[in-house]
Amino acid sequence: MERILSLFISGLSRNGRAKHRLPVIMVMLVLLLVAFLGVPLIAHAADPTGADTLKENPTAAVNMAWTLITGFLVWFMQLGFAFLGAGLIRSKNQVNYWTKSFMDFCIASLGFWAFGFALMFGGSKLFPGLDSGNSLIGFSGFFLTGASYDVSTIMMWFFQMVFAATACTIVAGAVAERMKITAYLAYAFIIGAIIYPVYGKWIWGGGWLSTLSILGTTGARDFAGSGVVHMVGGLAALIGAAMVGPRIGKFNKDGTPNLLKGHNLPYVVIGTFILFFGWFGFNPGSTLAATDLRISVIAVNTFLAGVTGALVAIYWTFARTGKMDIVMGCNGCLAGLVGITAPAAFVPPWAAVVIGAIAVPFMINTAHIVERVLKVDDAVGAVPVHFGGGLWGLLAVGIFADGTYLGVKGLIMGDVGQFLLQLVDIGALIAWVAPTSLLLFWIIKKTIGLRASREEELQGLDVPEHGMEAYPSELPVPAGKLAPVPAGGKMPDLDG
Amino acid sequence: MERILSLFISGLSRNGRAKHRLPVIMVMLVLLLVAFLGVPLIAHAADPTGADTLKENPTAAVNMAWTLITGFLVWFMQLGFAFLGAGLIRSKNQVNYWTKSFMDFCIASLGFWAFGFALMFGGSKLFPGLDSGNSLIGFSGFFLTGASYDVSTIMMWFFQMVFAATACTIVAGAVAERMKITAYLAYAFIIGAIIYPVYGKWIWGGGWLSTLSILGTTGARDFAGSGVVHMVGGLAALIGAAMVGPRIGKFNKDGTPNLLKGHNLPYVVIGTFILFFGWFGFNPGSTLAATDLRISVIAVNTFLAGVTGALVAIYWTFARTGKMDIVMGCNGCLAGLVGITAPAAFVPPWAAVVIGAIAVPFMINTAHIVERVLKVDDAVGAVPVHFGGGLWGLLAVGIFADGTYLGVKGLIMGDVGQFLLQLVDIGALIAWVAPTSLLLFWIIKKTIGLRASREEELQGLDVPEHGMEAYPSELPVPAGKLAPVPAGGKMPDLDG
Amino acid sequence: MERILSLFISGLSRNGRAKHRLPVIMVMLVLLLVAFLGVPLIAHAADPTGADTLKENPTAAVNMAWTLITGFLVWFMQLGFAFLGAGLIRSKNQVNYWTKSFMDFCIASLGFWAFGFALMFGGSKLFPGLDSGNSLIGFSGFFLTGASYDVSTIMMWFFQMVFAATACTIVAGAVAERMKITAYLAYAFIIGAIIYPVYGKWIWGGGWLSTLSILGTTGARDFAGSGVVHMVGGLAALIGAAMVGPRIGKFNKDGTPNLLKGHNLPYVVIGTFILFFGWFGFNPGSTLAATDLRISVIAVNTFLAGVTGALVAIYWTFARTGKMDIVMGCNGCLAGLVGITAPAAFVPPWAAVVIGAIAVPFMINTAHIVERVLKVDDAVGAVPVHFGGGLWGLLAVGIFADGTYLGVKGLIMGDVGQFLLQLVDIGALIAWVAPTSLLLFWIIKKTIGLRASREEELQGLDVPEHGMEAYPSELPVPAGKLAPVPAGGKMPDLDG
Repeated sequence: MERILSLFISGLSRNGRAKHRLPVIMVMLVLLLVAFLGVPLIAHAADPTGADTLKENPTAAVNMAWTLITGFLVWFMQLGFAFLGAGLIRSKNQVNYWTKSFMDFCIASLGFWAFGFALMFGGSKLFPGLDSGNSLIGFSGFFLTGASYDVSTIMMWFFQMVFAATACTIVAGAVAERMKITAYLAYAFIIGAIIYPVYGKWIWGGGWLSTLSILGTTGARDFAGSGVVHMVGGLAALIGAAMVGPRIGKFNKDGTPNLLKGHNLPYVVIGTFILFFGWFGFNPGSTLAATDLRISVIAVNTFLAGVTGALVAIYWTFARTGKMDIVMGCNGCLAGLVGITAPAAFVPPWAAVVIGAIAVPFMINTAHIVERVLKVDDAVGAVPVHFGGGLWGLLAVGIFADGTYLGVKGLIMGDVGQFLLQLVDIGALIAWVAPTSLLLFWIIKKTIGLRASREEELQGLDVPEHGMEAYPSELPVPAGKLAPVPAGGKMPDLDG
Repeated sequence: MERILSLFISGLSRNGRAKHRLPVIMVMLVLLLVAFLGVPLIAHAADPTGADTLKENPTAAVNMAWTLITGFLVWFMQLGFAFLGAGLIRSKNQVNYWTKSFMDFCIASLGFWAFGFALMFGGSKLFPGLDSGNSLIGFSGFFLTGASYDVSTIMMWFFQMVFAATACTIVAGAVAERMKITAYLAYAFIIGAIIYPVYGKWIWGGGWLSTLSILGTTGARDFAGSGVVHMVGGLAALIGAAMVGPRIGKFNKDGTPNLLKGHNLPYVVIGTFILFFGWFGFNPGSTLAATDLRISVIAVNTFLAGVTGALVAIYWTFARTGKMDIVMGCNGCLAGLVGITAPAAFVPPWAAVVIGAIAVPFMINTAHIVERVLKVDDAVGAVPVHFGGGLWGLLAVGIFADGTYLGVKGLIMGDVGQFLLQLVDIGALIAWVAPTSLLLFWIIKKTIGLRASREEELQGLDVPEHGMEAYPSELPVPAGKLAPVPAGGKMPDLDG
Repeated sequence: MERILSLFISGLSRNGRAKHRLPVIMVMLVLLLVAFLGVPLIAHAADPTGADTLKENPTAAVNMAWTLITGFLVWFMQLGFAFLGAGLIRSKNQVNYWTKSFMDFCIASLGFWAFGFALMFGGSKLFPGLDSGNSLIGFSGFFLTGASYDVSTIMMWFFQMVFAATACTIVAGAVAERMKITAYLAYAFIIGAIIYPVYGKWIWGGGWLSTLSILGTTGARDFAGSGVVHMVGGLAALIGAAMVGPRIGKFNKDGTPNLLKGHNLPYVVIGTFILFFGWFGFNPGSTLAATDLRISVIAVNTFLAGVTGALVAIYWTFARTGKMDIVMGCNGCLAGLVGITAPAAFVPPWAAVVIGAIAVPFMINTAHIVERVLKVDDAVGAVPVHFGGGLWGLLAVGIFADGTYLGVKGLIMGDVGQFLLQLVDIGALIAWVAPTSLLLFWIIKKTIGLRASREEELQGLDVPEHGMEAYPSELPVPAGKLAPVPAGGKMPDLDG
């Protein structure tokens, strides 16, 4: 065993000697920690193959397949966010942005695995093994431990984790091109471990927002997370962007903003395509069941709101400027999708069209406020789409719900209670996320530091933080010549 | 309420004043129209949660999950079409092309929602709420209204809509680099609202082609749309490209064509990959049911035809030129996929290989005719793949169907009736789509105008029509220097 | 008929005369071969619509939908491999690399269709029609023929084919930038037709490795193919890269390696995203059944191993160099995913975290050995990830299996037999794949030739092998000027 370890150590050190022991120690620590937590678990999970579950409920198979596949689609949205943001920022920060986009869900999901899931669903009793918790916070399921969790609990973890990861990644774009990667990854862990799940507990984990009664109506409603995912991510993005400060050159001395153009417009459209695709998992999958045939209505509502948002936004810019601004079209589409996320199951298709259309002025107004009033530099427009659109989504439940699904009724059905519940929900969300995000970014600022140096920012973060460029040999190599890209500054040996 | 409206209006106008009221009015009109249509619908849809449907038919869950997920894959083909076309055209038209690719499905799907679905499936009685119509055209389901539609009807709408959107987007590539975006989007609405659905009604909506009998065989067959989607789209593409005229520089004075190279060959392959992926939804999903276990045969047939098409095409170019032309490989793959689309369910795997192989000469001959005989400039080869391949697909049903599925038999089983029905189908398709497309593009030409100006075309459509470039900061920014990309022509304020 | 043929022939020859008959003859031969094999099959397949299967087993629908959809995801990994490798190599070889990436699965899958599936599953009796074979090799199912195969066999073919195609494509990256495309495609056919399936037979097709008993434990275990797919592909990659030799400039005279930088770092991340997405099909789909609710555990284990691998790898580079090396992060992620592939169903989530972490030193050590000890030029790091990670995966089954699934127990449960079986499996894999791959590449070298000429390599393979560049008009075209890209070297006619 010792020999094996020393073999690893020598391998981990490229030159054959254990020069830097830190990473090795880190690996060992992770292994020890997890092994320590894991050992008591061996063979303890209830019904580990799901045979009992299936016998009791034969539809478990189709429902689990549905939930997992839609969860895969939600996870794939990570790539959409990466493309979208990467397209809107400059070449010199591409490696940095793609690294953040990839690593943030890795870290956030481990935070959600270690702590978040337990805080959010402990005590919900939604699935086996989630027994302990109160209406503010849960206490069971840390590290997916517990003698009584089963395959359904594991499925639930997967589906919830991809949502937590989505909330996390919304922030990447807003703080792009100047936040240090170490700072960003520290944020990612905490939002997945604490900020997202605590609010999530209140509404999705059986917490107080889901049991609150107003005027005889019980429970705020956020079907697939206009609030839980998008407003939370959008608000954290606003606070992160405010704390890290605007990019050099974003605002003039008189406070007027400049447009710092991105580097790849097609990437913006590609990102939106992939996000739209993922949304077909996000909303319809949130039934956690294919036996809930409402999924077809949810899919259609999601689609209609997205396309209406895109059309209203692009024709709005066309009417104003005579140009078809596809960035605005994409943002309108996304705002429509965010807006329909909370009400998707509760409203009829015609209302989805209306909701998608109205999401656009919410998005535009939020952008105006962020950039012109608050003077915050949101590099990719994450706050308008996710906070603005999400706010509208929570309101829209209270307006357009038609009573055909779970009895949820909005103003159009003459019910005021739901609308008031939604307002309380919005208030609670802001009251939790704003101060905790502020505190989080403040602590990071005082410890790791939030912002790259002025020199690094001007140069672009790729080389200083990652030691590489995004497009190292993008310029064409003349035919018959070898691209001069040796390691260590030495020309390659052409006879090698 | 008035305050809220005025708030929106002021927000919609960036500078705080309601300078351009048109977009606001447009938004309001959309809302009013939809709300007007929507109000009678509140709580009217039958079985809105699908509980009754499920009780009656427990397999509805797996079938709906299957249909929706495969529908998502079909929708994702939009991204494949976008990549494919974008790779084959020049940098200067990228924003324009991506905008068309994104906005066309938005518009076409709204057209299909408002009118198309009703025209196509009204009277088919395939699903609840589709009662009224005759063998030429349907009359029920406009705006997805009707007291008796249910979750299955909604599911059907979704699946059919993604097919309509596919037919629409085929045209984008053929007319790329010179058709005005406003003209293109007007076309997109009409093909989704009228041209596609009327022919679709005839064969998929219970119309006359599906009930016609010849020599004792009843009904032309087009399993997943070699005709309905691909020939319709390909034919509209041919007529659109002919009407808008060739790109500057495409044809020499003596009528010989030039190759106007695209800007990104990898994009062509990426697009083909994504289209292939989506085809796994397109064909197998067209059973609308996972309980129809023929789906495995359909998936395998689809796959085999695609790979055979790719191989035959690329080795054909290799044999002729000594070069492996991947563009030809991709087009061969797509032609094979288009070709297998109609017969996918009716033929054995060996026939799929043959069909995929023969699709290639159909594609190549069509290209020859379009470019050399008709002298039409199809910028991305959409007509050969979709019209040529689709024509072959409809014929192939009448040749290779082996009688194991729905009793459909082709020439190899000694049945001539089916082959003749397929010929009638092809004739009917052309007889409807050609004149209506011609009329449509003629009307657009006389009103909006089809073509960008010569100056805009030479410059590229991105800046004139969209006010932006695709790769604004693609050229590397020297380290330590700020990219000079201010808004409004002023240098950014480095101390900001 | 003759007229039709002559029409095709004249069309196939662009200038209207049958100048090169070779391609036409090739097409005809393919058709004849397949038709000859196909004719006896007409209407022979058992239960062609699956109606009997479904009556016997109503869960066949959800299981087939699950298997097909996850198979689609596995197939989509082809695009991930293409992006990943393309990003890591230079611009001048992009067309070549994308062509290989696309055409290799086309050819490998036809090889698997013609021969591989029969060799691998003949005699397994897993599905109807797979009757004849012994414990070393199978004999039934060539060209998917046989009177008794049914829809389940066809489904099995599809799922297995996408795995064979994955093993094949792993090699593309290792030999990139210098192997001739004709040589590479010849390899692709043979690995799909022979090398992959024979070993696959031993462990997945009911062969001797699956029935071997040691210390009372029966059967080596490789749940989703750490060995079958990844080690096989990785080992073939190692041998291919060794046989073709290093790229010009890779090694200096003193044997020290240079880094030949890729051209697009974002592509590396995009590729990893898509591969990760596909892995959700790869592992969970390998149950071939959604009624096996273990799928949720498999999905979560897969995910946790991937993110842990990414984190350990990137923080390891960060600790050593102060830079976050995203290429290392991506490779760590992939190594974790490869490592969890064999044990995914047999271990609890905490073990997945440990397995993902330990995959990283396996990957790094393998890289060290390949580049520094063996001095083999693996252009994209395929061997470390797939061979190194795969080796670890097979071992990990023997260590961490907790006995909750199929009774498989590893060292942590005090069982030594499984661990020894895994060692035998590893030995058998190497003993089969290494000599056959060596022989294969040797034969190709002596016939077609493995390597492009020095001139072609320096110029890049795109123009010599494909006659085109990847980014022909990438450099911006000055506004108002036409891009000078005529065919045949003549300027386009601007008045055309």
